[in-house]
Amino acid sequence: MGDELKLYTVRGSPFVCRVEIALKLKRINYQIIQEDLKNKSSDLLNFNPVHKQVPVLLHNGKSISESLVIVEYIDDVWNAFPILPHHPYQKSVARFWAKFIDSTCIPALFKVFGTNGAEQAIAEACEKLQILENELNVKGNKFFGGDNINFIDIAANVIAYWLGMLEEGTEIRFFTKEKFPKLHEWADNFVKVETVKEVLPPRIIPPKAQLLAVFKQRFGNS
Amino acid sequence: MGDELKLYTVRGSPFVCRVEIALKLKRINYQIIQEDLKNKSSDLLNFNPVHKQVPVLLHNGKSISESLVIVEYIDDVWNAFPILPHHPYQKSVARFWAKFIDSTCIPALFKVFGTNGAEQAIAEACEKLQILENELNVKGNKFFGGDNINFIDIAANVIAYWLGMLEEGTEIRFFTKEKFPKLHEWADNFVKVETVKEVLPPRIIPPKAQLLAVFKQRFGNS
Repeated sequence: MGDELKLYTVRGSPFVCRVEIALKLKRINYQIIQEDLKNKSSDLLNFNPVHKQVPVLLHNGKSISESLVIVEYIDDVWNAFPILPHHPYQKSVARFWAKFIDSTCIPALFKVFGTNGAEQAIAEACEKLQILENELNVKGNKFFGGDNINFIDIAANVIAYWLGMLEEGTEIRFFTKEKFPKLHEWADNFVKVETVKEVLPPRIIPPKAQLLAVFKQRFGNS
Repeated sequence: MGDELKLYTVRGSPFVCRVEIALKLKRINYQIIQEDLKNKSSDLLNFNPVHKQVPVLLHNGKSISESLVIVEYIDDVWNAFPILPHHPYQKSVARFWAKFIDSTCIPALFKVFGTNGAEQAIAEACEKLQILENELNVKGNKFFGGDNINFIDIAANVIAYWLGMLEEGTEIRFFTKEKFPKLHEWADNFVKVETVKEVLPPRIIPPKAQLLAVFKQRFGNS
């Protein structure tokens, strides 16, 4: 197709992985540019001057930022293997849940680690996870998207893979199989999807103090 | 067309107004259902069980929540008078800025009032507004969308109309014409758009103490 695709990334980011899952689902080739967040490249600062963060997708010289915006862009450009449903109503449902996960659920989860497991933060995070648990229960599907993963599952990858690592690293546990059986079943299915497996980074648990410090700085007051 | 459209609203909400602007731009008839947020109807709780908030659009019995998700839905269903650009790249740009306004800029603005004008909060809000000021400056257009309003302008309606009222009510002023000339010019143009004029509520300034209390409760710790 003559498309030139570069993805600015860091290793181990769930937000970068969202974009990589989308690209791999579409079977699109892309070049990875590794960024060092302590010494960001002038390209990254130039292509995403607002947030100065990865992921940034460069498609034929044009830059797109924000992981879910990039995933929608990929789905708009390449129609095969759709990520969002075609029907406007189903599409709006997918966008609603992706936004809930991104703007409500993930900040609540990260706040747990930012507050070193404050009781109130854990209660709020569990409340958000329960909403997703109920949604899976009501729909009765293997994935949020149905029989196959879609936009919602991709948005929720943090819960499927990273949350367990964060719990192990910080020794703060609240996302238990007993409390959230459907979400755990979904997570098991999600990480077994071939495309997802290709993308997920190795399971590496940073030291507790380092994890807590990072989350405290970014989510301690959120 | 046989479409039945009900919009669950409260008076004076910028988030409801986003949806109303979209509906009026498309020249779609709809029925307004006024909600009392202190005594929410069972319909509202049923149609938006996750957030229990307005706006909710009910289209032929199917409910859609989250103002920007609703606006995209309206644009997906009714093609005339497009709100998002057609081209995927331009569309991603519109989504990027709408998300910036919604998730980054508006919380920063509301935090100013939630903290009763804390210096740090004002500095952060001005930093976000400056990013939008620069964007208008670089593009040199009348609106974020170009010659006509689009998704970004609709997302930013809080800045165009409500921010001034909040400043007047709280006596906390930071969005000045001197600092943000382009944004003020844009705001003046935005509120003059016929469709926008039809939708904007009367200029009513609640008492200072009431405003500060509401924002403190919701954004004091955000």
